[in-house]
Amino acid sequence: MTRGTFMRREIFEQPQAIARLLDEEGPKIRTLARRWQAKPPRLVVLAARGSSDNAALYGRYLIEILLEVPVSLAAPSVRTLYKARLRLDGALAIALSQSGRSPDIVEFMRGAARAGAHTIAVTNDPHAPLARAADDVLLLHAGPERSVAATKTYTAQLTALSLLGAMAARRRLLVDAHQALPDLMARALGLDDNVRQVATRYRKITGCVTVSRGYNFATALEAALKLRETCSIGAEALSSADLLHGPIASIGRGFPALLIAAQGRALPHLIEIMRRLRRRGARVLGISSSSRALKLATSALAAPEAPDEALSPHVLAVPLQLLAYHLALLRGFDPDRPRGLRKVTRVL
Amino acid sequence: MTRGTFMRREIFEQPQAIARLLDEEGPKIRTLARRWQAKPPRLVVLAARGSSDNAALYGRYLIEILLEVPVSLAAPSVRTLYKARLRLDGALAIALSQSGRSPDIVEFMRGAARAGAHTIAVTNDPHAPLARAADDVLLLHAGPERSVAATKTYTAQLTALSLLGAMAARRRLLVDAHQALPDLMARALGLDDNVRQVATRYRKITGCVTVSRGYNFATALEAALKLRETCSIGAEALSSADLLHGPIASIGRGFPALLIAAQGRALPHLIEIMRRLRRRGARVLGISSSSRALKLATSALAAPEAPDEALSPHVLAVPLQLLAYHLALLRGFDPDRPRGLRKVTRVL
Repeated sequence: MTRGTFMRREIFEQPQAIARLLDEEGPKIRTLARRWQAKPPRLVVLAARGSSDNAALYGRYLIEILLEVPVSLAAPSVRTLYKARLRLDGALAIALSQSGRSPDIVEFMRGAARAGAHTIAVTNDPHAPLARAADDVLLLHAGPERSVAATKTYTAQLTALSLLGAMAARRRLLVDAHQALPDLMARALGLDDNVRQVATRYRKITGCVTVSRGYNFATALEAALKLRETCSIGAEALSSADLLHGPIASIGRGFPALLIAAQGRALPHLIEIMRRLRRRGARVLGISSSSRALKLATSALAAPEAPDEALSPHVLAVPLQLLAYHLALLRGFDPDRPRGLRKVTRVL
Repeated sequence: MTRGTFMRREIFEQPQAIARLLDEEGPKIRTLARRWQAKPPRLVVLAARGSSDNAALYGRYLIEILLEVPVSLAAPSVRTLYKARLRLDGALAIALSQSGRSPDIVEFMRGAARAGAHTIAVTNDPHAPLARAADDVLLLHAGPERSVAATKTYTAQLTALSLLGAMAARRRLLVDAHQALPDLMARALGLDDNVRQVATRYRKITGCVTVSRGYNFATALEAALKLRETCSIGAEALSSADLLHGPIASIGRGFPALLIAAQGRALPHLIEIMRRLRRRGARVLGISSSSRALKLATSALAAPEAPDEALSPHVLAVPLQLLAYHLALLRGFDPDRPRGLRKVTRVL
């Protein structure tokens, strides 16, 4: 099998990549968490594009929920296009970029530093311009990512953010729970055959919605991005709260809906959404660790349960990456080289 | 014509509604702008759902660009689901809701007040729970909105935000330029026949992308929402920056792309995107006040030019509302009663 080799290999590298990140970057993350505790930021600004932007949205929920500090997801064009200089004294700016070479994210980071923010680059490349522009660097230790579709660097970004947040919030149990991630992700990789079978049933879809809420809204966005990029499926991510505010109207009989439901605060709401979608005749693919949710699905992928809802996006990302991979192959695409995409995007 | 009566009538009421807002709410907005100047907030948090959330995104660009204060678009479930209490001392929280009755937005506002923020409700109903929960109320004066699809309350929200921002930033020319809006919107309504002809050519599309950047990214999001809600078209809004970061791969020959391009900072970038989309064979519908942009389009709607890019979303919204209206009728839908939608959404 030559097609899809890089994407598949990188999906399967995740348990080792995450173990390496915890091991090699743990002490640096602890230092940054102590800095947070000594001088908590009044605001966190997160900047990213593409898959990294979905990791940033996860970071937004995590930081607001665990640390109760407001988070702004940056609109880089406020600076790059309109030349505004935001007042960021006392703020922490975190930029996420696998390559560290997206010019507008680098420009955002330089602007944030000049505006008085403390800056952290989360990147896979210590020599990239983003790393040089930042006060501190968190390295992903994911190894080279050759597939255009980001997989192991996405879950590494989630892990860097969740470990930083848990340490800064002094949530000992959550800090320790990170050690279970490599094993949980390895178990999630064991779903490979099931995912392939499910993909066979969904191989002809032209569109779908991916639905979740809270922490896993980021997972829904990332799944939709992967399905669009690697499979040319018109996938739209929706928060289940927004789903009721309009889009549910356009979901009719046979329309595919991917429901991503971890154990936790969002689960009762998502179970109710699954019921409503089934009543409308939608084909509901449930990706969940909850047997109640899985029973409501048309097709079900039973994912390992994370020790905390805050770590469930790391685990649930895996079957969704496998789904995008298998669907791409079944639909005749090379998942490593989506049409018209490059690894580093140069925004005009 | 009974079908579409409310939506059409409310679209055509916009010049008077905006004139009334400027007249009747101007003094209150000036008072709030003085309060801003006396004690600038360190952070602005905007909370909304649906069309109001698109107005909030416009407000985000406006406040960051004109006032250089960072803005966070609230994720209400951080509070309603996870019970986090964000630290909002010194912040200004603005909640936008036409009805003032979305329970999670009301709950967000109450939480923001308890967390130390100054709170402003932007609503059409002075007696709604949202108005009662806020320190200050900005009334839209739009009159009753009977169509489920928000039109006049959306442009009224834009106007309330732009006038507040311009006054707080002491941008006299921009403040005065608001007086031109009713006339510009009336001229935009004069496009009705052209829009109907264009709609005839696009009546059979099943999907499209709506594309813009900067101030008018909100316009692109609102256009996509209207096309989904009233016409059941699978419309996706994309920032032209993000378009290059992946989705352009799935835009092939004949695929419809709505390009929303005002005069201003984003224009050169959008013109380049139009060239690329045409090279890919996309059907590009240009909605613009720039003759350079219109020349690159497959179909063109020449909109009146706003005196400032910051006011262009108010004017460009009008032809896009008309487009959604005409497409709904041509496709056999009642634009006043989209399938499965209610005017006030009760998020679980």
